Amino acid sequence: MAHDAPLSPLAPKTFPDMPAIEGVRFASGEAGVRYRGRTDVMMALLDKGTTVAGVFTKSRCPSAPVDWCRSKLKSGKARALLVNSGNANAFTGKVGADAVKLAAKIAARAAGVKEHEIFMASTGVIGEPLDASKFDAVLDALAADARGEAWLDAARAIMTTDTFPKVATATADIGGSQVRISGIAKGAGMIAPDMATMLSFVFTDAPISAPALQSMLSKSVQGSFNAITVDSDTSTSDTLLLFATGAAAARGAPRIAAANDRRLASFKRALEAVLLDLAHQVVRDGEGARKFVGVEVTGADSAKAAKRIALSIANSPLVKTAVAGEDANWGRVVMAVGKAGERAERDKLAIWFGDVRVAHKGLRDPNYDEAAASAVMKRPEIDIRVDLGLGAGAAKVWTCDLTKEYVAINGDYRS
Amino acid sequence: MAHDAPLSPLAPKTFPDMPAIEGVRFASGEAGVRYRGRTDVMMALLDKGTTVAGVFTKSRCPSAPVDWCRSKLKSGKARALLVNSGNANAFTGKVGADAVKLAAKIAARAAGVKEHEIFMASTGVIGEPLDASKFDAVLDALAADARGEAWLDAARAIMTTDTFPKVATATADIGGSQVRISGIAKGAGMIAPDMATMLSFVFTDAPISAPALQSMLSKSVQGSFNAITVDSDTSTSDTLLLFATGAAAARGAPRIAAANDRRLASFKRALEAVLLDLAHQVVRDGEGARKFVGVEVTGADSAKAAKRIALSIANSPLVKTAVAGEDANWGRVVMAVGKAGERAERDKLAIWFGDVRVAHKGLRDPNYDEAAASAVMKRPEIDIRVDLGLGAGAAKVWTCDLTKEYVAINGDYRS
Repeated sequence: MAHDAPLSPLAPKTFPDMPAIEGVRFASGEAGVRYRGRTDVMMALLDKGTTVAGVFTKSRCPSAPVDWCRSKLKSGKARALLVNSGNANAFTGKVGADAVKLAAKIAARAAGVKEHEIFMASTGVIGEPLDASKFDAVLDALAADARGEAWLDAARAIMTTDTFPKVATATADIGGSQVRISGIAKGAGMIAPDMATMLSFVFTDAPISAPALQSMLSKSVQGSFNAITVDSDTSTSDTLLLFATGAAAARGAPRIAAANDRRLASFKRALEAVLLDLAHQVVRDGEGARKFVGVEVTGADSAKAAKRIALSIANSPLVKTAVAGEDANWGRVVMAVGKAGERAERDKLAIWFGDVRVAHKGLRDPNYDEAAASAVMKRPEIDIRVDLGLGAGAAKVWTCDLTKEYVAINGDYRS
Repeated sequence: MAHDAPLSPLAPKTFPDMPAIEGVRFASGEAGVRYRGRTDVMMALLDKGTTVAGVFTKSRCPSAPVDWCRSKLKSGKARALLVNSGNANAFTGKVGADAVKLAAKIAARAAGVKEHEIFMASTGVIGEPLDASKFDAVLDALAADARGEAWLDAARAIMTTDTFPKVATATADIGGSQVRISGIAKGAGMIAPDMATMLSFVFTDAPISAPALQSMLSKSVQGSFNAITVDSDTSTSDTLLLFATGAAAARGAPRIAAANDRRLASFKRALEAVLLDLAHQVVRDGEGARKFVGVEVTGADSAKAAKRIALSIANSPLVKTAVAGEDANWGRVVMAVGKAGERAERDKLAIWFGDVRVAHKGLRDPNYDEAAASAVMKRPEIDIRVDLGLGAGAAKVWTCDLTKEYVAINGDYRS
């Protein structure tokens, strides 16, 4: 059962204008998978010629829809996306695989496409059989009702403990033609993406080949969805799919075959911006979150070492509870640097909360000002920066604080 | 500031009888390091001939006392142990190293021994300079007052957020002579020992060489202190020291030089029992803990893989909040198995809560009984067992639940 949490105080104040992307139409409805009185199924219809790329959880126990998407991704083509909330169809064995097949059959019939052109994702409780026959009653109506502008409704239908729908959009230039990239995401808990996030779906009208899409997506995810953590728990269902309808070709956009095509420079920047925007929204809606925390590590031996240290800080329950308590407890940052397993020299370490340097060369900053540090901690958005003073490796990740509400939400999510 | 938490509901009902160990005397007092109205310094005086072994945090930012102990351990000899609570003397740079030297000088004078025969540990806040001159006023009196039976007072003086003192004892037989092993520990938070725990000190009258002690200690710690976690945060100060006074030699116990001496069989078992007892008490006093949780993994590819999976489960905030909520949410156990990074086959996995099998061969157990599983979750002590069905690798670790009290305690520990 979804916990009835109030809107996150870190929610965006407004939603961006989300115009339709040519070749993509959405519909959402109530299939009654688990929730009552809210939408729980979303379908996106994709025009012929749509290419697709995807990244998925590295969990050794992935959900049935993740298995399905991985096998269907080889063709690089997609005609529809079906997503339900309320049940993750994970750890459901053969029953789960059968449910995915039945769902694909129902969706293919409703959309008038082939089963292998259907992509799927499910989110919600793990280990409960998913009754895919519930889709039978709603998908035909959804397919008939699909509209290009229904982004927010689509984002709402895939929410679980999320308190707000997550959308983002950007434009880019390819060979003098404007293309658009827009996406949706859901998050909230079990967020420590190792390859993607819980669920995110991004669409563009750019005419880009599946291999080029895949290359850009795999690269862009490192600094966005793979750089956030709510609770260090990696989901069985993480799925990020990027669909390109190619509709912009009719307006003169050149067809792009390879990721190293120079005409993709603007597109790559826009894709990274959309993914980072969605990833940040996932953190801002982290279960119980009251603070949005950036953790930047510089001066490490390598970028990989910097990221490992940054994640050690961002995943530390003691750092996260200190942030919740608005306590500039940099000793816990030292602890998290120390446990990360990467080289660190105590006497070269410097630590900042916001613009206040609290530690320098192995001890408390001689100019440390408790009042200034406390003022930083009272802000809703806090940057923690650590300089190791060793090399040029740098990384930034984002997390939220750990509050009593996180415990409350997760102490009674299922029951 | 120590959080004024009520006694852990998982505290032992009684303390064991802790007779003196010949060659060891304790005293504790108030040095006023940080706390008021409670003891915060403990000294153990050790007779001539005492050997010593130690294991320490793997943190890359260890405390100044850890640096000191590591360097002094080479001699294998000890004459006194000085421990303070309230300040960890960690991340204090040269000032911290100087404080350790001054403390050693004061302790050596009080105990009438050499400075390099002093071992030290500090626990409390990180990053604050420790004023070692405060020991000057109290250590002489402590040395004069030391008694062999003062185990509980010694254990109390090293507490921080602990709600009860931790002691354990056992006897063993060496070559027909009875020897005793007794120890104390402190824990509570920042508990994910990578080499030892926060602080634990174990004493025996057995006449055993330092290299043999070190070998046994390094081995025994793997299944005890290195198999517990409260919050996945590894301390900068983890220190476990084992002292052997050798006093039992006067009663006929043979002097043991090597760890592979067959006459050590009983001693090894007793040492493991004492370490495991103390480690369990640390978990039972985990910050905010209401449940004591054993996590056993069997059927893994190797013992190392089993332990990594067990720790992934034991450190998962979602598993720990589910336990706090008395929710038999085995889907989160699947998630934690999946994210551990070790081989797992969904369709071979079985999961138990207590004696209730909840999952079997990749899906919910056909005989799953929600009422029976819920009854298990209401107990104060819960065993979670996972069988991977792959190999013979097995491991067991222990943890506690994650409660709102953990967040409360750590949201205002320092301020």
